[in-house]
Amino acid sequence: MKCEIIAIGSELLTPFRQDTNSLYLTERLNELGVVVAFKTIVGDRRKDLTNAIRTALGRVDIIITMGGLGPTEDDLTREAWADALGTELKRDADIVGQLYVRAAQRRWQLTENNLKQADMLDGAQMLENPHGTAPGQWVDTVFGAHRKLGMLLPGPPSEIKPMFDEQCIPRLREIVPQRFIATRTLKAAMIGESHADARIAPIYSQFTDVETTILAHLGDIQLTLISTKSTMEEAEARVNELASLIEEELDDLVYSSAKQSESLEQIVLYYLEMRGATLSVAESCTGGLIAERLTSIAGSSRSFLGGAVVYSNELKTEFAGVPEELIEEKGAVSREVATALAEGIRRRCRSTYGVGVTGIAGPGGGNEEKPVGLVYIAISDGVQTEVVQKNFSGDRERIRFYASQQALDMVRRQLM
Amino acid sequence: MKCEIIAIGSELLTPFRQDTNSLYLTERLNELGVVVAFKTIVGDRRKDLTNAIRTALGRVDIIITMGGLGPTEDDLTREAWADALGTELKRDADIVGQLYVRAAQRRWQLTENNLKQADMLDGAQMLENPHGTAPGQWVDTVFGAHRKLGMLLPGPPSEIKPMFDEQCIPRLREIVPQRFIATRTLKAAMIGESHADARIAPIYSQFTDVETTILAHLGDIQLTLISTKSTMEEAEARVNELASLIEEELDDLVYSSAKQSESLEQIVLYYLEMRGATLSVAESCTGGLIAERLTSIAGSSRSFLGGAVVYSNELKTEFAGVPEELIEEKGAVSREVATALAEGIRRRCRSTYGVGVTGIAGPGGGNEEKPVGLVYIAISDGVQTEVVQKNFSGDRERIRFYASQQALDMVRRQLM
Repeated sequence: MKCEIIAIGSELLTPFRQDTNSLYLTERLNELGVVVAFKTIVGDRRKDLTNAIRTALGRVDIIITMGGLGPTEDDLTREAWADALGTELKRDADIVGQLYVRAAQRRWQLTENNLKQADMLDGAQMLENPHGTAPGQWVDTVFGAHRKLGMLLPGPPSEIKPMFDEQCIPRLREIVPQRFIATRTLKAAMIGESHADARIAPIYSQFTDVETTILAHLGDIQLTLISTKSTMEEAEARVNELASLIEEELDDLVYSSAKQSESLEQIVLYYLEMRGATLSVAESCTGGLIAERLTSIAGSSRSFLGGAVVYSNELKTEFAGVPEELIEEKGAVSREVATALAEGIRRRCRSTYGVGVTGIAGPGGGNEEKPVGLVYIAISDGVQTEVVQKNFSGDRERIRFYASQQALDMVRRQLM
Repeated sequence: MKCEIIAIGSELLTPFRQDTNSLYLTERLNELGVVVAFKTIVGDRRKDLTNAIRTALGRVDIIITMGGLGPTEDDLTREAWADALGTELKRDADIVGQLYVRAAQRRWQLTENNLKQADMLDGAQMLENPHGTAPGQWVDTVFGAHRKLGMLLPGPPSEIKPMFDEQCIPRLREIVPQRFIATRTLKAAMIGESHADARIAPIYSQFTDVETTILAHLGDIQLTLISTKSTMEEAEARVNELASLIEEELDDLVYSSAKQSESLEQIVLYYLEMRGATLSVAESCTGGLIAERLTSIAGSSRSFLGGAVVYSNELKTEFAGVPEELIEEKGAVSREVATALAEGIRRRCRSTYGVGVTGIAGPGGGNEEKPVGLVYIAISDGVQTEVVQKNFSGDRERIRFYASQQALDMVRRQLM
């Protein structure tokens, strides 16, 4: 079955914004064996929108629109669907009721425009939206003598993903012919893409029935193995076989090989908890990024105590007890100060491990001796302190992320 | 004049790749006054490709295809254009000659497939490609009684950009009526989309010649105003007029109205520097996110000193001097502890302002009295401390982001 994804919003036709939701939907659709044949991006003009939907109805089986379900004047997706199908919208009393209840709970004033969100296509099923106000719609109809499936989904990623996963996929599963796809994802930190590929290409190239893709992103390599077979056992056996061989080759560089791929911060917290250990961080150039990444995981408070963002020299002394003379003598960006940060924050927080990071994230602040991208990362367990020097390339964002990635990977290795 | 950009390549329909060339072309087209009304992404299937081109011929004036001009089996753009226009391809002897010369220079073996690159649409002009082998084509024809302009451009960014700039833009300039486009972006924090729309719709709906779009994302509203006129003065006057009226209505909710739109963290740092003031933060539930957002901006060290991530109660006392008894009596998530965090971190860091945040980001940890989403945010200037209570909805990521957004917006308002 062929699908077209239509992203709606005039902002997506400016030079500054791109649709990214479709990547997620494509991945989930492919898992079901549905091919995405077209993607269309169209603005908030009713005529253009109707044209895009009618075109899709003429060339594919499944049409997904994303966006334009909000309460404003330029949310016209419902109207355009009705125009394209040659049908009418009907205001659904139940949904009107729900909108009033939700507005009352949040003490919002409901406007006439808000009620547009209760307008349903003839014969459509409502898709609930627990993460926003705009309900989606599921259409299963006949158009031009062919069965067509339509989904009207909201635009925000936090709304579209759960709605698609929980309400569209189960419905699609009942309609789309069954195929079995097994996937495995291996993740490795701080290894270059071409270096990784050179090591593993001789292995995966022998598995011609397993699709292997390598994706590199900011100090992270993600290997995705996909096998499609007529039984799940067969598909899983093939990806597992290949995964084992790759893991053997890359050894301790691989930090995650679970079916449900984990992030480096999840792995670090998992190991910390398993060992009954705690962690604190003193961050200069990463400015809170390591703490932010760890605390983004629910339950992180069991192992991550907190720490300090010590951007100024005074705070390095105040919060991590780094001697003023040491900063003066060696400079704030130095092996010695990184070590003192790790040891000092560990003592102050009474944690099992302490991490210290100091460096030059740029774009300014570098010189010949200490260039932009120079970062020292230290980890202390109270007995000894390991410190590494790195020269990262890239812009401020990249350098900061690499430094946080390196720090988390060092904690992981300590715990292994 | 309306344009459609068609990106060609099956890899652009996988979860892993996106078309980015269109952003560049859109920017250049907008400068000419050409509106991009549709973008379509289609794979290397001849039938789908023909369908996409024919659809575009039916709904816009200018059609640009990107990619599919190479020498391989699945480079089918030329054939699809011929199918869509109902015309024939003719092998151009001059281009064949050029291909041979180029191959000889590079000691390539020319295959029969390579010669496909010399196949021209009837009446088309060749667009030279100094950066690759595949020449482009310029089509100026009549289809369905309307004049249509077509461009067949190569896919690689290094080839398409110079070809478009040097050979397509001069041709377009002679045909497209001269128009000028002015844009303005207004940003406001912590106001709901429909609430904002209800307040400003009466204003912008009177400016029928200015296109207004509202985009909401995690506690941020972005209003884009676009005006197209025959002189730049006129276009700018219209967007400026509308922008002033909206700013007047939304008053201090608007934090950015510059031509080049700024982020909330940039605005906060800008105001801090302007006032010669400094800031420190003590973060519990946001876990470093506020510090991370501020330090992501280059030069933030001039005004942002740092702070503490005080996830555990012990660290709230250790780093921000919050009395143990206060935490015991009122609970870590309370108005009083937020206040003590703001005041304590300000004292410890000797900054002009101190911010304290404590709350329940979830998914666990909530109860009836203190539910998930409850967050207290305090800001102290040493004389007085303002504290607000918020009940944010959404998942952990949203709650944390909203809290950081609220905190930054409170700093902004203090500084105004």
